[in-house]
Amino acid sequence: MKTALLHEIEGLRTVALVLNTDDEAVATLASFAVEYRLAASHFIAIGAFSRAVVAYFDWATKQYRHTKINEQVEVLSLVGDIVIEEDLPKVHAHVVLGKADATAHGGHLIEGHVRPTLEIVVTETPRHLRRRFDPVSKLALIDTTVL
Amino acid sequence: MKTALLHEIEGLRTVALVLNTDDEAVATLASFAVEYRLAASHFIAIGAFSRAVVAYFDWATKQYRHTKINEQVEVLSLVGDIVIEEDLPKVHAHVVLGKADATAHGGHLIEGHVRPTLEIVVTETPRHLRRRFDPVSKLALIDTTVL
Amino acid sequence: MKTALLHEIEGLRTVALVLNTDDEAVATLASFAVEYRLAASHFIAIGAFSRAVVAYFDWATKQYRHTKINEQVEVLSLVGDIVIEEDLPKVHAHVVLGKADATAHGGHLIEGHVRPTLEIVVTETPRHLRRRFDPVSKLALIDTTVL
Repeated sequence: MKTALLHEIEGLRTVALVLNTDDEAVATLASFAVEYRLAASHFIAIGAFSRAVVAYFDWATKQYRHTKINEQVEVLSLVGDIVIEEDLPKVHAHVVLGKADATAHGGHLIEGHVRPTLEIVVTETPRHLRRRFDPVSKLALIDTTVL
Repeated sequence: MKTALLHEIEGLRTVALVLNTDDEAVATLASFAVEYRLAASHFIAIGAFSRAVVAYFDWATKQYRHTKINEQVEVLSLVGDIVIEEDLPKVHAHVVLGKADATAHGGHLIEGHVRPTLEIVVTETPRHLRRRFDPVSKLALIDTTVL
Repeated sequence: MKTALLHEIEGLRTVALVLNTDDEAVATLASFAVEYRLAASHFIAIGAFSRAVVAYFDWATKQYRHTKINEQVEVLSLVGDIVIEEDLPKVHAHVVLGKADATAHGGHLIEGHVRPTLEIVVTETPRHLRRRFDPVSKLALIDTTVL
């Protein structure tokens, strides 16, 4: 993984992250976020995965159901944000994947194994947002009580 | 719905909107746009809906065909813009939704009922754009005659 | 095609591109990029196509497989970047399309014939990135050796 600072003005930073074959997207984004101590950030990406795991949140059981996609797919969009959760930046990303027959599939991204590239643009802002455990959904949601 | 101003410089504003369970996405974005008198803005979001209505514009009839999606879905991407139409900010948004089997579906967003969250980043710019009725498509398109 | 400069500060420019019926999206973006000598840029768009050609990169053969979509579709998202390749700005874009039955399809965008509109927001940054032929994938990837 390589990064390039594209622009910076008064705490608004635009950074390109280019991931290569065998980088795993979620782990790489998370370690980038920790290393650069990212404040509230959001990102968008395109590229391709050799395989991925996506998840669907089952409201009845309050559990994620995982779907493995064990084939080369185009990453049609990867959209997400990075917000502090328990003092560490946490990546939240949803993905749309295109198969060989051009059908689209996707979910909450659990694992995405890059091949050959994932081109991400991260926009960082100086303000911090935080996630907090929500007892109703049993998910860590952005804490709106402090906004 | 809660908002947080993430950054502002010379009229370029980045705002986080966090919607909660039972907020309807289109109406909430529209009232936010009116309240903050948004100029030309664009946004991107991820989250989940308990149900949604999406539309496809049928070119032959010049009518939108609605499809109801009456199940919990991941919002894989919600992309749109806010532009003035008849003196009011008008939301135009397209959505990609992921079902439990990881298949993707979508269209022009008519209604999206949030559950449990929708995380939106709005970028506002100081310039105004306007929509104007286009007699060929019978849609309100961005008025390019004044650009 | 018409453009509107929405904001500019120290080389960070936000530009709206509005394409009309019969504009082809990839060629129009490419000629815009050449005309404005775009440095590293990224974009996002929604709209509709009367027909499109999308591609899937077959890792086994290192060839793109094309799928023609010969019907009116909603452009649910068009995400991409513009980076210099062999001294010219090169457009790289992935698209998600919605059919009349609300199913989503997509791939690497080869051709997208606009009808009636495509609303693109381009963010330009002053830094240049370059693509370079990668002998393993046989694709022109962003050159990370110089980052």
